Formats: sequence, C-alpha cells, structure tokens
Amino acid sequence: MKIYDVEGFPNPARVRIALAEKGALDQVEFIPVDVMNGEHRSAEFRAKNPDAAVPCLELDDGSHISQCTAITEYIDASFDGPSLTGDTPVARARITMMNLRAENGLLNAVSAYFHHATPGLGPTLETDQCAEWGNRQKEVAGEMMVYLDDVLAKQDYLAGDAFSVADITAFAGLAFADLAKVEIPENLSHLRNWRSRVAARPSIAA
Amino acid sequence: MKIYDVEGFPNPARVRIALAEKGALDQVEFIPVDVMNGEHRSAEFRAKNPDAAVPCLELDDGSHISQCTAITEYIDASFDGPSLTGDTPVARARITMMNLRAENGLLNAVSAYFHHATPGLGPTLETDQCAEWGNRQKEVAGEMMVYLDDVLAKQDYLAGDAFSVADITAFAGLAFADLAKVEIPENLSHLRNWRSRVAARPSIAA
Repeated sequence: MKIYDVEGFPNPARVRIALAEKGALDQVEFIPVDVMNGEHRSAEFRAKNPDAAVPCLELDDGSHISQCTAITEYIDASFDGPSLTGDTPVARARITMMNLRAENGLLNAVSAYFHHATPGLGPTLETDQCAEWGNRQKEVAGEMMVYLDDVLAKQDYLAGDAFSVADITAFAGLAFADLAKVEIPENLSHLRNWRSRVAARPSIAA
Repeated sequence: MKIYDVEGFPNPARVRIALAEKGALDQVEFIPVDVMNGEHRSAEFRAKNPDAAVPCLELDDGSHISQCTAITEYIDASFDGPSLTGDTPVARARITMMNLRAENGLLNAVSAYFHHATPGLGPTLETDQCAEWGNRQKEVAGEMMVYLDDVLAKQDYLAGDAFSVADITAFAGLAFADLAKVEIPENLSHLRNWRSRVAARPSIAA
C-alpha cells in the first residue's frame, strides 16, 4: 500500500503512529504531497481524495481510502499486534466515541483556530478565513482539554485501560496545539502526564 | 439497553433507523429528553453525555455511549442481520470514510447552518451563533450534495453495493436539510433517486 502525506503534519502523524504500533511502517510506501504549494487541491490529487487533504491511502487495487479514522481502522485490521480499535463491541464503541471527541473537540478545533484565526499556512493557502469561528474553536479545544484531563484522572487511556486510536488522535491534537501555540493549562496534570507516557511509547519516541 | 433521545430529530433518527434495519427497535427503551427546554444541557444529563446532545445509549451496566457513529456501530455488532458497518477491513474503511464525509460535509454542515445562520431552535437555546460560519457551512453542504450525487451515479449506495450507516447518516442529513430549508438541486437526480429508494426501505417507510 501507498500513503500520500506530509511527514510531521498532525493528521499524517496519526497514521504513522498507528503503523508503528503495528510494527508495519516498512510495509508502506510514503509519497510526499507538496501541501505548501497547494498540490492537495489539484484536480489530480482530488481524484484520489475529494477531501483535498492528507493523508490518503492507496490500496494495491488502485482505490483510495481517506479520513484518518478510516485509514487507521484499516491498518489496525490489516496487521498483527494489539488492537487499536477494540476487541469487543463495547470496547469498539467506547473507542469510536472517544476518538470522535478527540477529533472534533481537540484536533479539528485547534486546526480551525490555526487556519481561521492565525496566519495559518500563509495568505496563499488561507483564502477562506472566519476569525470569529476560529477563536471560538480555541475555546472548544480548551474545554475538551479539561474534559480529557477529567477522564484521565480515572483511567490510564482515553477509552479505558488500553492504548487506542483515541489516544493517537488526542496526541496528534496536542501536537497541533503546540503548532498553533495553544497551551495545555498547567493544572491539567493528568493530561500532561498521559501525554508524557504516550510520547515515550516506542511508536513515537523511536 | 436504553436510549435517551427526541423522536423525529435527525441524529436520533440515525440510531432508530439502524435499530429498525436490525429488527431490534423493540429491544430498546426510549427515554425522551426535553431538548426544547434545555434538559440536554443540565448537569444530570451531562453526567450521562458530556457532549450535551442526543441520542445517548445507556448500557445495562449503567455506562453510556454517545456519538451516533459509535452507537450505530454498537447496534450493528449487537444484533443479527446484514452488516451496516462492513464485513471486511476494506468495506469497513470505505463505510467509515463515507460516513464521515456524510456526517461532516452534510449533516453537521446543515446543522451548523441551521443553528448559526437561521433562528434555529429559538433565542433561548441559540445563544452562541456565528452567522458567517453558518452560511459557509450551507455552501459546504451544497458541495457535498454534488459529490454524493457523483458517487451515486456509479454505485447504488454511498459506500458501494450495500446499504450502510453512511447511507443512514446522509439520509438523516437530507432530513435536516429539509428542516433548515436547504434544497437538493433539481439536477442532482442520482441523489434524489437514492433518497427515494432509501425512504422506501421498511426500516424507514414502516
């Protein structure tokens, strides 16, 4: 399989961490997309991914899967190793729920702040800003951090006792928060400690 | 299991259609939430669902699952009948991808237009409007309708040959579009025909 992405960007990192957790990074060919020059918005790339975003997975039959949650679900099912998406219906549902909260309430919220209420990727790419919305999404991200801290006061990982794609999404969300200069409040010690533990995993620290 | 919801609202409809597809509507106790009077934002309800939204599933152990995608995934795994979320890793990934497109690009976009750029549920509940954002999301919904029409020109359902949760989400999105007075353009015949076929399913027409 091939993955079109940009190394170091938050959403591509979700897929790379999932692959590393499964020990499968070397089974994928990565193809860089020149996002800074708008390649992701070209007709050629939109034919692969109508969302005009990275990452995008290309299967061996030439078809494409985009949306990180779909790609990481496919990776989890395709390679051996501990499940990242849950082994039982209840575990799967909890992981899906927490992954969506981390995605919409943290990663996408910080992304909206970055792209709408800061210079973002620069005036050539940020042609559709709505600062009022971006600033509200920064508040949403702050509220989600408080919620996640509360969850992590009671359990080791966002969806329970096991590391999952929900943790990967939230971890990437905090990386995006760094990029956007949105800080984790000092008093959210459970979230900060969880972040340190996740950062030390071989899939990320290596 | 119990489901806290409001009959007739678009997101609750997603869960009710999934249950009907599995022939399991009678296995759930529905508990109405007085959304019009803000019950979903009460501390008591937030203890069940921190998202302060309906629907919310209560399992027999007293724990809760929210986010429609998580609830419908749990329903699909818990009851017999044709799969709504896919039988193979590729099918699951395609359904997850198309479900997210239908959710973010249609249902949530129309919802943002309704709540931010129209009177929505009225001044008591709509205390945080951002009209500029809402109006842009109406455009996003229009673009997604064109994309979905293009997909449905080539296949019977949004994720391929089989009906799935992606179809349920898009169908609920069009119901929300009706509520928000966002029309499907006349020329999108594939989307209109698909809607008629889905509306005739026993899970919806009955």
